Amino acid sequence: MGFQKPTGTQDLLPGHVERWQFIEEKARDLCRRFNYREIRTPIFEQTALFERGVGETTDIVEKEMYTFLDKGQRSMTLRPEGTAGVVRSYVENKLYGEPDVSKLYYIGPMFRYERPQAGRQRQFHQFGIEAIGALDPAIDAEVISLGYELCKDLGLQGVTVEINSVGNPDSRAAYKEKLLAFLTPIKDTLCKDCQSRMDRNPMRVLDCKVDQDKFADAPELVESLDETSLKHFEQVKMYLDDMGVDYSLNPRLVRGLDYYTLTAFEYKAQGIGAIDTVGGGGRYNGLVAEVGGPDQPGVGLAIGLERIQLILDNQNIDLQAVKPLDVYFVALGEAADREITKQLFKLRQAGYSAERDYLGRKMKAQFKSADRMQARYTVILGDDELSRGEITVKRMDTGEQQLVNIEDLVSALQQS
Amino acid sequence: MGFQKPTGTQDLLPGHVERWQFIEEKARDLCRRFNYREIRTPIFEQTALFERGVGETTDIVEKEMYTFLDKGQRSMTLRPEGTAGVVRSYVENKLYGEPDVSKLYYIGPMFRYERPQAGRQRQFHQFGIEAIGALDPAIDAEVISLGYELCKDLGLQGVTVEINSVGNPDSRAAYKEKLLAFLTPIKDTLCKDCQSRMDRNPMRVLDCKVDQDKFADAPELVESLDETSLKHFEQVKMYLDDMGVDYSLNPRLVRGLDYYTLTAFEYKAQGIGAIDTVGGGGRYNGLVAEVGGPDQPGVGLAIGLERIQLILDNQNIDLQAVKPLDVYFVALGEAADREITKQLFKLRQAGYSAERDYLGRKMKAQFKSADRMQARYTVILGDDELSRGEITVKRMDTGEQQLVNIEDLVSALQQS
Repeated sequence: MGFQKPTGTQDLLPGHVERWQFIEEKARDLCRRFNYREIRTPIFEQTALFERGVGETTDIVEKEMYTFLDKGQRSMTLRPEGTAGVVRSYVENKLYGEPDVSKLYYIGPMFRYERPQAGRQRQFHQFGIEAIGALDPAIDAEVISLGYELCKDLGLQGVTVEINSVGNPDSRAAYKEKLLAFLTPIKDTLCKDCQSRMDRNPMRVLDCKVDQDKFADAPELVESLDETSLKHFEQVKMYLDDMGVDYSLNPRLVRGLDYYTLTAFEYKAQGIGAIDTVGGGGRYNGLVAEVGGPDQPGVGLAIGLERIQLILDNQNIDLQAVKPLDVYFVALGEAADREITKQLFKLRQAGYSAERDYLGRKMKAQFKSADRMQARYTVILGDDELSRGEITVKRMDTGEQQLVNIEDLVSALQQS
Repeated sequence: MGFQKPTGTQDLLPGHVERWQFIEEKARDLCRRFNYREIRTPIFEQTALFERGVGETTDIVEKEMYTFLDKGQRSMTLRPEGTAGVVRSYVENKLYGEPDVSKLYYIGPMFRYERPQAGRQRQFHQFGIEAIGALDPAIDAEVISLGYELCKDLGLQGVTVEINSVGNPDSRAAYKEKLLAFLTPIKDTLCKDCQSRMDRNPMRVLDCKVDQDKFADAPELVESLDETSLKHFEQVKMYLDDMGVDYSLNPRLVRGLDYYTLTAFEYKAQGIGAIDTVGGGGRYNGLVAEVGGPDQPGVGLAIGLERIQLILDNQNIDLQAVKPLDVYFVALGEAADREITKQLFKLRQAGYSAERDYLGRKMKAQFKSADRMQARYTVILGDDELSRGEITVKRMDTGEQQLVNIEDLVSALQQS
């Protein structure tokens, strides 16, 4: 009998995992440049945190969470997204007491029990940033631009940002009234989900895939924005213009989560058909207080790494190749075998990547291994050479061979 | 109300997370040199995998697993260790079909419901490697030496490796008989756990903390080793001698997991009192077949990153400091504010780490921020300078100031 990985999870194997490493290194380097520092929060949290911090009426909390009782009978949930945990940590560790804005990033696994499909896994991975503590629209633009730069740095084609303002709570309340006035007369024609959402969170009705054609004349949120919200939005757009970020306005963009205020945005890229959203984010000025902290504003983004991979595949973008090996050792004879194991260790200590055969294979098979690993050098030792204290260094690109004293191997490699 | 992280989990915050990044970078670089490549397996697996691959009579499986039913009513478990998932992946993805030995590493979170204490968390983190497909004792030595080099590279003091051979299944069967002959007459004097273990896994009785003093005259496993096991052990020691690895023999070392054969080892370091084990590993020649694969041998190690952190703390070893910021921008006036946001973005695109104020603070507070972030340069812009198209670059270590054309900012920084 064999075991299989759980449905909706993936094994990332050598030959493919390097793509993930590459993306993560790019993200980390961007965070260094934009002065975001890493935060790592637990893989699971108290279930109540997500009910509060993601929103009880969201699909995530209603249908998709991995919730379980631990051995102490406490309800825990594998994190379905990254923001709630980061904000919980910000509050619990009193980061609001620090003088500067908390600029944080995370990379890691998230969990939602969804129907697996291309670019959508039950264990999926997100890169995200959170800037907590500032209302300045320049930081909304900074957050948006960081995600935009990541997509561009990775070589994605046709990247655009859709932006909207969902307003502050007053604007939203005014809009909800207008929207209900529009929806109520057509309520009976809507799907069951929409009817249920109308009562709990009418803005999410407009997300409905089934009834989309009925909403052409629905009122738009941007028309209900108050002066503060409008001014904030104008300034975000001004900064994005200054930075050369390619954005467009999408007045229907409200995002799935309940806690957004003011700025909302999504990244789109060419080439994955129906699924074209790479990630997104927005401002969440009420969230810190919602999870028990002081009234501190925040703005953040999250990008799905499976989505990025899928688009890179579809756009035929080849990421950094596997790193070639520095040295492959070939031994002929038992004494030589022992000696190369020692030399192998010395080279590794000196910083070289080095390998030998562990399967007792013949010389020809060993050279094939060296080729597969794209070794820059092979170093060959027979018992005869060993008795003279010498070893052969072969440069694989030119075929050039050199006999050196065994003790001088490291310096011979340094010089060649 | 506020939320707290679950008991036994940690938040890794900026200022501390850099220590983790540093350790992980060291581990990844060692793997590059030793030619191990990363594998990432899911955070949770089918529960049956761990029952089979870790062992039903182990403390881990009996008492410590985070097991839950998913929404499809399948029993899943958060991985309590890394080897079972890697071996499952090796089998499922048919890595045994590749011509070279599978040399794999992982870094990530593991989960055990234990009583939290120093260096022991419910969500903890391990770095581990697995070499699957070779019986050569040189690869046992390679695995042992990689962990040893990691401890040394991190600057840990007083690192030693304890090694033992637990023999092949025949040796172990012979030993178990001798051990039972020793234990049976004293069975009534042993603790309940020991009595229960005698029936299921008598070798684990010797691990008991309570009854340790009764085992002084217990037979030793090494005396029961057959010729093949002995020869393998001798060769491992020979290679370790060649590599200068500081090891000692510990005939009582059997490790907690059921699946070890032949080589078993643990890393010890000074300075954490009762808890002095950093990690360990061993050979597991039966495991691949046990989880449904072909009869392929394997050997691996796992190192606890919390343990490493604890020892580094206790030994007062300071890891790499926080990276200083390249440039902090200070703006005086609204137009200047907009311009530095643009310049900030340009510098970041050019690879510099750069920051500005987002809290509308006075100049003095902004310079304090620049100091806290250890900025190498501050770049200062007032509306007056802006009208002339100029900007001031100040080198923080010398105090030297220079007025440059705004458009030349990047090249001015490159030259200074």
